[in-house]
Amino acid sequence: MITGKNYIGNSLSSKGNKTFTTFNPLLNSENQTIFNEASDEEINEAVQLASEAFNKFRMISGKEKAIFLNAIADEILALDDALIQVYCSETGLSEGRAKGERGRTVFQLRIFADLVAEGSWVNATIDTAIPERTPLPKADLRKMLIPLGPVVVFGASNFPLAYSTAGGDTAAALAAGCPVIVKSHPMHAGTGELVSFAIIKAAKKTGMPNGVFSNLNSSGIEVGVALVNHPQVKAVGFTGSIKGGRALLDLAAKRDEPIPVFAEMGSINPVIILPQALKNRQESLAKTYAGSITLGTGQFCTNPGLIIGIKGENLQHFIQNIGREIVKIHPSVMLHPNIHNAYKKNKNTLISQSDIEIVSEYEGELRMHHAQQVITTVEGKTFLENPTLHQEVFGPFSLVVQCDDAKQLKKIISQLEGQLTGTIIAEQTEISVYSDIIAALQLRVGRIIYNGVPTGVEVCPSMVHGGPYPSSTDSRFTAVGVDSINRWVRPFSFQNWPNQLLPDELKNDNPLHIVRSIDGRRTKEKI
Amino acid sequence: MITGKNYIGNSLSSKGNKTFTTFNPLLNSENQTIFNEASDEEINEAVQLASEAFNKFRMISGKEKAIFLNAIADEILALDDALIQVYCSETGLSEGRAKGERGRTVFQLRIFADLVAEGSWVNATIDTAIPERTPLPKADLRKMLIPLGPVVVFGASNFPLAYSTAGGDTAAALAAGCPVIVKSHPMHAGTGELVSFAIIKAAKKTGMPNGVFSNLNSSGIEVGVALVNHPQVKAVGFTGSIKGGRALLDLAAKRDEPIPVFAEMGSINPVIILPQALKNRQESLAKTYAGSITLGTGQFCTNPGLIIGIKGENLQHFIQNIGREIVKIHPSVMLHPNIHNAYKKNKNTLISQSDIEIVSEYEGELRMHHAQQVITTVEGKTFLENPTLHQEVFGPFSLVVQCDDAKQLKKIISQLEGQLTGTIIAEQTEISVYSDIIAALQLRVGRIIYNGVPTGVEVCPSMVHGGPYPSSTDSRFTAVGVDSINRWVRPFSFQNWPNQLLPDELKNDNPLHIVRSIDGRRTKEKI
Repeated sequence: MITGKNYIGNSLSSKGNKTFTTFNPLLNSENQTIFNEASDEEINEAVQLASEAFNKFRMISGKEKAIFLNAIADEILALDDALIQVYCSETGLSEGRAKGERGRTVFQLRIFADLVAEGSWVNATIDTAIPERTPLPKADLRKMLIPLGPVVVFGASNFPLAYSTAGGDTAAALAAGCPVIVKSHPMHAGTGELVSFAIIKAAKKTGMPNGVFSNLNSSGIEVGVALVNHPQVKAVGFTGSIKGGRALLDLAAKRDEPIPVFAEMGSINPVIILPQALKNRQESLAKTYAGSITLGTGQFCTNPGLIIGIKGENLQHFIQNIGREIVKIHPSVMLHPNIHNAYKKNKNTLISQSDIEIVSEYEGELRMHHAQQVITTVEGKTFLENPTLHQEVFGPFSLVVQCDDAKQLKKIISQLEGQLTGTIIAEQTEISVYSDIIAALQLRVGRIIYNGVPTGVEVCPSMVHGGPYPSSTDSRFTAVGVDSINRWVRPFSFQNWPNQLLPDELKNDNPLHIVRSIDGRRTKEKI
Repeated sequence: MITGKNYIGNSLSSKGNKTFTTFNPLLNSENQTIFNEASDEEINEAVQLASEAFNKFRMISGKEKAIFLNAIADEILALDDALIQVYCSETGLSEGRAKGERGRTVFQLRIFADLVAEGSWVNATIDTAIPERTPLPKADLRKMLIPLGPVVVFGASNFPLAYSTAGGDTAAALAAGCPVIVKSHPMHAGTGELVSFAIIKAAKKTGMPNGVFSNLNSSGIEVGVALVNHPQVKAVGFTGSIKGGRALLDLAAKRDEPIPVFAEMGSINPVIILPQALKNRQESLAKTYAGSITLGTGQFCTNPGLIIGIKGENLQHFIQNIGREIVKIHPSVMLHPNIHNAYKKNKNTLISQSDIEIVSEYEGELRMHHAQQVITTVEGKTFLENPTLHQEVFGPFSLVVQCDDAKQLKKIISQLEGQLTGTIIAEQTEISVYSDIIAALQLRVGRIIYNGVPTGVEVCPSMVHGGPYPSSTDSRFTAVGVDSINRWVRPFSFQNWPNQLLPDELKNDNPLHIVRSIDGRRTKEKI
């Protein structure tokens, strides 16, 4: 069923000469399908088709887009076991995780379908005319959100379904009315092709224009670079490393017409454990955090890579306990040998820094491509002085920082780079004492958690997944939840526009029955 | 009353050695005050103060911010004639225009005051916990908009009040909770200092932290460059040329931590006159457009610099008429000799292109620094082939393009650079015939106008002032209207956060009585 070809709109295509395969880390062997990397010609065809499709797709009603999005969800489910098997064979992840992630992907498609079927998300705002106003009459002005144009989505290595081909970025862009060109992630190109098959099938079934979706294979950087530089591409979504995200941001910034790049990048997700909580709960915290650090082999962007406390007996006990707990957990396989090699390299770089102490590392036998989990610790002063220690080690790794006092803790927080999340572990009684530390943490993160773990990103309207640079390239937007649609739209204003020519969202009689703001009042009323 | 010094927070300061003066274009002479350009030390002091002020200012309630914004408006009005006189002496603009612009400035401050006093703008979104959910319990998540940090605002040459020191950018940033550092425009540094005096007086009266506002003088690019590069600056607002805006965007993109630059830049604001309208109304249109082109000596960013029609007798009559009408209007003075020189240079560059025909130019005697209004015309084919003809000539200038047919007209629209506005002049009967042209125009602009003129930018919620690049650097935001506050904020999420520690906007009992979204329902109810 998997051909190894690209989808250029509705057509399978393999004009390029460069090929590659995916890898099964559990079997330590290459998977069979040979994938054809997209050629320059295919890239241009895909963007050209997307650009033409945009002229039709942007005019399609919310209800029709909802039918399309729900059909994608249905077709993904219809792939059934074939999808789960390919997913597992390309990632080493379990069937349970595959099904869970498929559930999240389908859920995301359906909530965006609901959003656009209902229709009020366009934020229709109407100021009616005041012809008799002096000295100048007031014009009738009506505003709504409209799509930007073709969007390029880069598949994420760690979420082959939920943040790749038909993941959050794609669902949000299609919901907004933007055609999508996916640069498929080379590590799960087969999963990507199967999901693309589902999307194309859904697009055909629901009468969407050819070019509303394309899927391009690539094993290197060339396809991505060509896409970001293409004049007809209007925005980019990316989930991955800081290096990769920054490279795309820099490319986009240098274009004749700069375009927005929404990159969700690295984060070490600092966790601050305050003294009373440490005293009362260090044992259970050690167990909980050993679990959070090793969840999904530490391959989540919200993995807690940094735990900070104030020096003392309780912190010592916590460190010993989390060290003991983490090695009790059975090691698991990483997504790909490249990712495992990067983990080993980054872990070793960190461990080799001066004054870093290894608390514990898994010492049993490790199966091929399985990650050795490690807990390390360092003094606050050393951490402050060495920015290498602030860098993400993508995998089941965490660094516990022992601060001299609250003042040093605050200094560390104030000097941290931007993060997706920050966590405060505290007893209620001690929070007011450390309010300035909490305030400082807020400035560095997009989401703050009380007495929990940062892993587990709920898909709901009040989620913020994003944060100050370098956790994301634009802290003004979230990558998770329905508000992520705002990345792919712009406001547009009609002045004195004839009623029958207005989009339905702005017509006098409100045929879509959406909530609108009319002269400052939110209402579903007609004008 | 004007000292020529910088405001570093609440203190007047003049540590630098570089000085400059402003110029009265009507009198053709330098004004008396000698201004001290801000030194590197002063720049650092201002940003450091802003950064410290941010820690307090971001916690201040909406009601208190409203009192501050209204106090700024009051203090600006209290400057009375002193402000109007300096304004006129630094711009050559009339007293009527000065008062009109002051009114707009005060109005903007007050609508932002109303917005933050009411408080619902933070878009509070709450998803309550579902502890019994399986397989995993759902956390309590609460989201709202929070300020980005210190913002740098560049004063605009053509709006010394409404888009400068206490203009739209500053009002929106202060309303959001961001301290502002203004890089004062050198052509109206006196106006800038007076308004800064009003802001500082208001800040002191209402107990705002020192550093919530600073005003830095500069005659060259150094101060602006240093500000945009400063690590503690978190966003930039600019109104001016494409060259200037792009330079700032490029600087900001190269920072270790890239920051958003919201630059509202050039636009030629295409006006399409469809054949029936041309036939029925060419005489009155010629009169109306001669007025729009020369309004404010053509120094508005929405000035109609490009008029497009389909070749024929009616278009010929229109061209002759607008040529006749424009020279009937008495020439007026430009803001500054530099702007007048740029006008002459850009106009001559355009006129010197092949196959450009001058329809009419004012031929009476011109007083010093007064602009000669000019109407030119060109064939559609020539326009398509020569991108120089697409460039803005800032001043009372317009180019009428004569297309062979509707197909060529559509091609011209499709190839146009991004614009703030586009205008369709039509009879209702002919609109459906040209629907593809209208659709193409929509893709190139931020606001589309029916049977009107693009000049006159209403300050209201449904206004979009911004558009695809290069009319602005980020089409996802507007620079005019209360929604412009969204440029300076980011969403922030609290997970399982203790109620008493939440900001008032997100507390269970909704003490601010704002509209919130709770589990998908918009309500003012408590939880």
